[in-house]
Amino acid sequence: MSDFSATKKMFSLPAGMIYLDGNSLGPLPLGAQAKMDHVLHNEWGEMVITGWNRAGWIDAPTRIGNRIAKLIGAPENHVVMGDTLSLKVYQALASALELRPGRRVILSDSGNFPSDLYMAQGLINSLGKGHELKVVKPEEVEAAISNEVAVLMLTEIDYRTGRRHDMDALTAKAHSIGALTIWDLAHSAGAVDVDLSRANADFAVGCTYKYLNGGPGAPAFIYVAPEHIDHARPALSGWLGHTAPFAFDLDYRPASGIDRMRVGTPPILAFAALDAALDIWDMVSMADVRAKSLELGDRFIAGIEAQCDMLTLATPRDHEKRGSQVSFRFEHGYAAMQALIEHGVVGDFRAPDIMRFGFTPLFIDEDDVNEAVAIVAEVMRGALWDNPRFQKRSKVT
Amino acid sequence: MSDFSATKKMFSLPAGMIYLDGNSLGPLPLGAQAKMDHVLHNEWGEMVITGWNRAGWIDAPTRIGNRIAKLIGAPENHVVMGDTLSLKVYQALASALELRPGRRVILSDSGNFPSDLYMAQGLINSLGKGHELKVVKPEEVEAAISNEVAVLMLTEIDYRTGRRHDMDALTAKAHSIGALTIWDLAHSAGAVDVDLSRANADFAVGCTYKYLNGGPGAPAFIYVAPEHIDHARPALSGWLGHTAPFAFDLDYRPASGIDRMRVGTPPILAFAALDAALDIWDMVSMADVRAKSLELGDRFIAGIEAQCDMLTLATPRDHEKRGSQVSFRFEHGYAAMQALIEHGVVGDFRAPDIMRFGFTPLFIDEDDVNEAVAIVAEVMRGALWDNPRFQKRSKVT
Repeated sequence: MSDFSATKKMFSLPAGMIYLDGNSLGPLPLGAQAKMDHVLHNEWGEMVITGWNRAGWIDAPTRIGNRIAKLIGAPENHVVMGDTLSLKVYQALASALELRPGRRVILSDSGNFPSDLYMAQGLINSLGKGHELKVVKPEEVEAAISNEVAVLMLTEIDYRTGRRHDMDALTAKAHSIGALTIWDLAHSAGAVDVDLSRANADFAVGCTYKYLNGGPGAPAFIYVAPEHIDHARPALSGWLGHTAPFAFDLDYRPASGIDRMRVGTPPILAFAALDAALDIWDMVSMADVRAKSLELGDRFIAGIEAQCDMLTLATPRDHEKRGSQVSFRFEHGYAAMQALIEHGVVGDFRAPDIMRFGFTPLFIDEDDVNEAVAIVAEVMRGALWDNPRFQKRSKVT
Repeated sequence: MSDFSATKKMFSLPAGMIYLDGNSLGPLPLGAQAKMDHVLHNEWGEMVITGWNRAGWIDAPTRIGNRIAKLIGAPENHVVMGDTLSLKVYQALASALELRPGRRVILSDSGNFPSDLYMAQGLINSLGKGHELKVVKPEEVEAAISNEVAVLMLTEIDYRTGRRHDMDALTAKAHSIGALTIWDLAHSAGAVDVDLSRANADFAVGCTYKYLNGGPGAPAFIYVAPEHIDHARPALSGWLGHTAPFAFDLDYRPASGIDRMRVGTPPILAFAALDAALDIWDMVSMADVRAKSLELGDRFIAGIEAQCDMLTLATPRDHEKRGSQVSFRFEHGYAAMQALIEHGVVGDFRAPDIMRFGFTPLFIDEDDVNEAVAIVAEVMRGALWDNPRFQKRSKVT
């Protein structure tokens, strides 16, 4: 078992706060300061333009992509960093649709993060070729995989409920009828034991500011399976995805391999913090993280259910079917979460009634969970939910 | 006249280096450290997720956009930050083509930066509607503006020669036949006195890591003119461009105003360095910067032409027709630039034969120019260009 007491000491955690929102924004790794200072002074300051070669900036998107690859079961040199998750969704989807030219349906579910759906809508409008975004309920996805489907585009773990899709089974079903898959790992990378190779996933995308702790707005990543990468046309065909950027050709020719999914100049300062965050991930095994996170989640569920009968569990109890967060439904969830935050338990609220708590063993331990349970119980018992003050605050503004 | 001796002290400039490559990557502003420390510790570290509201992260793209707007003659709340320049080109072009549905030609020139052309090629392929990217020589652009043109897409200042297009005249000509304009300000923002409002530009895009000194991979910006912004469909329609992101609707509805051009989560750490860089811009007037940069360029041209007859000026002499860089053609330019860099004069080389030198008064003064001229002259005189050693190094690798 990895020593999580060691990793906890590697984060800056605000005093008096039990931070159960690492699924939204991970906390500051203490190593970020030194990495950032180095990049600012020893690289940017001293090398200026020559940093692109001397400090290896130009290769950072694939170097860091390889660090992420290890955490999501991807082979080396098949993950590259850049841009934001939404843009990586767009790249994956545009490529996938072209690989299935005879089909018109993008299948997704109502548990997908809205931005993925928005990007798909934007792409469909641009293409003007009659593609349809079909959004079903999460539990109806499997049955909806028909041979009209070009791409199954899902977020593995529901951002509200924490429900986890069966990536292996859904990918196999999609492949059985000739569809491709795009898996959004926003709530998976660093949270659960993802194995893209085992699942035969075609495309995967994710962000690094949640469980991976890369910092606010940290860059995204994209994975393309080996069998597709040299056929996938990068719709966002930028300079650094060109096979010979410094030839300054007027015509685009994609690089071989995952480099073609690069677009513009990579965000070097953001990579400094992300590198520090990934140093912590090098100390642990994903299997240990997953086992511990389930244990913490179970402890929280048991504690809350024993003391707060107004809260209804929204997350599946089954370990196989959940991610690394635990959510409860509560009519006055918005006001309740505000009250919890005031009392030092920081989770978050997602409309219409979800109170969401993230558990990540890297910096949350049993004592934190016990204390969080006690505070939640006290706040929930003490609050007068019929009081107009709380009802007023129940509105999302 | 602004006091440029004051601004020069606000940068970290490597000892023994005359840095004439700020047109590729600006140097480190000394204030970046304090801003970054603040964002790392006082914001990310202490506020964690609440930084999105308490530290104003969520509004940073428009707040910083307004700082840039002042430098490029744009009205308030019409510039927003995010992503990379290539992606902003894609957004502008996709929007512009939809605003001119009956036309099929995107007109650009061979002086445009290749990435802009690549993004256009990628978009055309995705659309599959028979659009044509027509690339003419820079001097042929005006004559090529016909009523088939949907969009005139140009980089105002040529990245190799420093030749400046007449934005006002070309925009007026484009408008006269019903075409829209997209101006790439990569080598303009912070370099010349851009006035988007006066020029009636429709769209403009730019990066912040060159003359603006925002750091390697600093975020890009996009401007959309007031008359278009509420009609421009953001093809890259992400979560933070939605009119109500936190309603988590399943359907995209664009925000009013420039916010619709936002896509994903903004890069907060990169903004810290950029904010520090923009503090320096608050101390000067763009008119003073422009006047001084032309003076420095003239001084360099005169010095080189007096002493280095093997170098041929590639930059227009006319002040109206050039940006803030000076370029010379030389057959062995690659090897010569390597030799110059070894002797402390850092410019850069662009294929096939351009030696490029950027002049920015914020940190380059007359003494630097005089010294640079002396070193260039000495290196050029001393080097044996017929020597096989140099000929070998003349190849771009």
